[in-house]
Amino acid sequence: MESSMYSFSVPVFVKTLGNLSAILAKGAAYAEQKKFDPEVLLAMRLAPDMFPLLRQVRIACDFAKGAAARLAGEEPPQWEDSETTIADLQARIARTIEFIEGFDPARFDGAEARTVTLTIRGEQVEYAGLPYLAHVVLPNFFFHAATAYDILRHAGVELGKRDFIGKV
Amino acid sequence: MESSMYSFSVPVFVKTLGNLSAILAKGAAYAEQKKFDPEVLLAMRLAPDMFPLLRQVRIACDFAKGAAARLAGEEPPQWEDSETTIADLQARIARTIEFIEGFDPARFDGAEARTVTLTIRGEQVEYAGLPYLAHVVLPNFFFHAATAYDILRHAGVELGKRDFIGKV
Repeated sequence: MESSMYSFSVPVFVKTLGNLSAILAKGAAYAEQKKFDPEVLLAMRLAPDMFPLLRQVRIACDFAKGAAARLAGEEPPQWEDSETTIADLQARIARTIEFIEGFDPARFDGAEARTVTLTIRGEQVEYAGLPYLAHVVLPNFFFHAATAYDILRHAGVELGKRDFIGKV
Repeated sequence: MESSMYSFSVPVFVKTLGNLSAILAKGAAYAEQKKFDPEVLLAMRLAPDMFPLLRQVRIACDFAKGAAARLAGEEPPQWEDSETTIADLQARIARTIEFIEGFDPARFDGAEARTVTLTIRGEQVEYAGLPYLAHVVLPNFFFHAATAYDILRHAGVELGKRDFIGKV
């Protein structure tokens, strides 16, 4: 049976990232319908000192990429941050899904006790795999994914919570 | 060792709900400083057809209460929805935390395969415990918690992501 460290990471990210890609497509369709540049949406934010939609999506992707790699026992790859369009952002989501689905679930066996080292504001912080996933990754991943939804919803895109949760 | 079904539910909810209570306190302090009625915040929303802050917090509480009870093998209690102030909402959070912390972690052993029956729009839906927690509860819980944060942030309350994530 696959380990819970796998069950509570990769399939959870894959599902929500896929939903996020569909949500972005609805944003693009809304822009087309209202005849405004869809990139306007990517620059929208809920407060002047919050990240705009583009960064919210990218950070959600990066939490998924980072967690899958670290829990499997390797350093996550660095990817260039060069997205400027909704299509670019969807490509990043697709690349993230492909990357995290590439890990054999067996590599997550024992990951609850594996030491994960992060550099946060220049300082090295160590976590065991379990609290890293439960208390760092999941809250952060969903924070950025839900905020991306909230920005589009606030911008007028017709979305419902079902778009965020998907079919379960 | 406590089961992962416990590790990825009760302690995760307790942490985020505690952070949400502190976030609401910052909302109340902001209202006092700006001299407006703090209940105004509870009625704020990001879109006219989204739930206001009050419901976002209550629903986050109810996902935590429902999940803890069902995964432990019992029906969650129904509580009256009568909150009208930030203090009321914080009392609901405190009551939720007390309720879910009341379950012996051993009751979650085997919960990944336990059948959970929900009534969604009048229809009975069955899940095994694991997909229920990973794909129904966690995304919904964090969706409502993050949206509560986003509403307050959008309202001008001085918050940072650290308020949402807490100390890990």
